[in-house]
Amino acid sequence: MSELEHKQAIHALTCRYAQAVDRRDFPKLADLFTPDARLCGPGFRMNGAQAIVDGMASLGQYSATQHHVHQQLVEVDGETAAGETYCIASHLYEQDNVPRKLDWGIRYQDRFVQWRGQWRIAARELVVDWTQDLPLRGA
Amino acid sequence: MSELEHKQAIHALTCRYAQAVDRRDFPKLADLFTPDARLCGPGFRMNGAQAIVDGMASLGQYSATQHHVHQQLVEVDGETAAGETYCIASHLYEQDNVPRKLDWGIRYQDRFVQWRGQWRIAARELVVDWTQDLPLRGA
Amino acid sequence: MSELEHKQAIHALTCRYAQAVDRRDFPKLADLFTPDARLCGPGFRMNGAQAIVDGMASLGQYSATQHHVHQQLVEVDGETAAGETYCIASHLYEQDNVPRKLDWGIRYQDRFVQWRGQWRIAARELVVDWTQDLPLRGA
Repeated sequence: MSELEHKQAIHALTCRYAQAVDRRDFPKLADLFTPDARLCGPGFRMNGAQAIVDGMASLGQYSATQHHVHQQLVEVDGETAAGETYCIASHLYEQDNVPRKLDWGIRYQDRFVQWRGQWRIAARELVVDWTQDLPLRGA
Repeated sequence: MSELEHKQAIHALTCRYAQAVDRRDFPKLADLFTPDARLCGPGFRMNGAQAIVDGMASLGQYSATQHHVHQQLVEVDGETAAGETYCIASHLYEQDNVPRKLDWGIRYQDRFVQWRGQWRIAARELVVDWTQDLPLRGA
Repeated sequence: MSELEHKQAIHALTCRYAQAVDRRDFPKLADLFTPDARLCGPGFRMNGAQAIVDGMASLGQYSATQHHVHQQLVEVDGETAAGETYCIASHLYEQDNVPRKLDWGIRYQDRFVQWRGQWRIAARELVVDWTQDLPLRGA
């Protein structure tokens, strides 16, 4: 594989993370991580692919989520890679009968490794620069 | 063409859709679809490239639109392809002298085909997980 | 380099611009422009890489920025290239003790050139179709 193909595979991996989370497809999500992967962010830290998938149960409080994956800058070094990926994660819910959207402005700090011939997420840290919580319709 | 080049061509097709719609460049937009293409979403269904382009006239109610194309996951199978593309479509307008922006959180469900040697959109369904309508400046 | 590799390099250049600005990494930012590059937008015009970097000092009024880079359509013509890149630039700040986010809906109009073997930004114009300024939490 060329460097371009590796980068495309890593980008697709990041997109599949978003798709699996938004579809609550947890078996598919588990396959994107190494068994000992770590995921952390403001106020949470999970160790191991199983703990990460279990932790996603907290998304059950939202009627839907959309993880919009934006630009990614990755450096590939043999069978490992590291980089930053921008994302806006939207969380839909209702409060006092008002539908609302909570957005997270994220810059994922990622470490990837080739595992059994496929790129997987080995470590993902969510740097959340801002959150915004607004009604879906405002005056 | 390599698989990577096919995927890049399909991604560019999706970007050209956004650009043509936002620029109201309808001749260019028509060229992105197969003649018998279908476009559907919440409350609308159009059959054929001409009907799709005609349907875009409804955008005239907005002073501007911006279709922000985000991640795309596509499977290519010979001369056909299918996939999902995330997008936020912003619609600018004015109500009671207040400038507002209506956003659609879209996951396009697309089918593409090679037509006369070029990738085109054969079917596009808009899954709209949320809409948000807010003033451009709020207290 | 193949056309695909050139396009990928130009896309990465655009992503590095976002990263350098958001990290306030001005030496890195300067290296993305040709010495005589121009940057302009609503109410501002800077000539030369040094003036562009100096002009970024105005970002000091914001506690943070996030430049979310979206789709890019570029035409490569030998050692020059031109294209459009969609972006939402988020600016975080506080007013009357209320944390707020100012978003710019941008379509960059870019001209790129190869300079000493690397793609650089020769001219960047910000077309800002809308701005939106809202509190981070609203009723």
